[in-house]
Amino acid sequence: MGDKARPENDSIQTFLTELASAAPTPGGGGAAAISGAMGAALVSMVCNLTIGKKKYAEVEEELKDVLARSEGLRAGLTGMIAQDVAAFDAVMGAYGLPKGTDEEKEARSKAIQAALKEACDVPLSCCRACRAVIDLAAITADKGNLNVVSDAGVAVLSAYAGLKSAALNVYVNAKGLEDRDFAQERLDELEGILAEAGPLTEKVYEVVKAKVN
Amino acid sequence: MGDKARPENDSIQTFLTELASAAPTPGGGGAAAISGAMGAALVSMVCNLTIGKKKYAEVEEELKDVLARSEGLRAGLTGMIAQDVAAFDAVMGAYGLPKGTDEEKEARSKAIQAALKEACDVPLSCCRACRAVIDLAAITADKGNLNVVSDAGVAVLSAYAGLKSAALNVYVNAKGLEDRDFAQERLDELEGILAEAGPLTEKVYEVVKAKVN
Repeated sequence: MGDKARPENDSIQTFLTELASAAPTPGGGGAAAISGAMGAALVSMVCNLTIGKKKYAEVEEELKDVLARSEGLRAGLTGMIAQDVAAFDAVMGAYGLPKGTDEEKEARSKAIQAALKEACDVPLSCCRACRAVIDLAAITADKGNLNVVSDAGVAVLSAYAGLKSAALNVYVNAKGLEDRDFAQERLDELEGILAEAGPLTEKVYEVVKAKVN
Repeated sequence: MGDKARPENDSIQTFLTELASAAPTPGGGGAAAISGAMGAALVSMVCNLTIGKKKYAEVEEELKDVLARSEGLRAGLTGMIAQDVAAFDAVMGAYGLPKGTDEEKEARSKAIQAALKEACDVPLSCCRACRAVIDLAAITADKGNLNVVSDAGVAVLSAYAGLKSAALNVYVNAKGLEDRDFAQERLDELEGILAEAGPLTEKVYEVVKAKVN
């Protein structure tokens, strides 16, 4: 990768080529963060093309608030591309620690467990952020400029793909955790997020489809 | 945008900022193409991490073939980011033509209709390519390296989001077409693609989820 610490500075082409390669990072976690960030960006786009238009004066204040939140989520999700790389590399690094003596074995095991906890929490943060983007996309699909309602639809689809993608990484890393209370707490939160997000995404898509047809 | 003809050369950060802005392009169509391209790239990643491994020798030839196809689809989908910008700008350009005389009105109307046809066919190509990525993701989820099966899951989710997102742009542009036969042919093909892709995506996700849990 051009810059492992700032993968968001890589070109789209470079990122895709690195994603396709046998290099372990970037992987699905980075793709999930980008999906979420594209969703947030499209919510912002709809807001930016609604705010200031006389026809939409009634919703202007609400969409200004949505825009502030979507831009915050976009920044957070963009940063998660790098966080996913770091979390994955930390797990790999921990697995690579020496395991010759009992002390080494114990230190390695502790390092793996700590790295796995972080590798659960990074994609869980991505899930939470994508869930928040879905809520904002629902508002823009409902109240935003009708000329760009399809972009609100793409926003909700992107955010939902980001959510379900990041969920897979939570599952993968939670599986290896010895601290089952820690793992179960994350999995329970995740199930709650997914249970709400699926039907809401479907509903927003149908609203958008009806408006564009 | 840094380079409208080659938006794939923009950094992820720049693309997201342009996506969020009030500028009409890039928009949801470009995001759809990126989702599809990320799906194709992740199929390639799983292939690249399976090919050459003794444990997976039995599926090596099949996954080499999948890899060749996913890399072709990735190139095609990456190119569609620019094609979407060009198609949208052509529609806007046609609407901007003079309409003072009857001749001008007729020429403008013809130009709009021609541009709308192209603006239907670009996202429809994206839908076809995303559908093909879903098939390849299904194979990698089934036969690829188990250590990266979650990436096959993200691949199918990204491709499906790209498909449904591009579909919205087909609907939007088909609506404005006077040539209803042309429009209906595209819409019929699209419905066929969507009808197959939804259940298949769900099935692949469940396969992946079972393997990571």
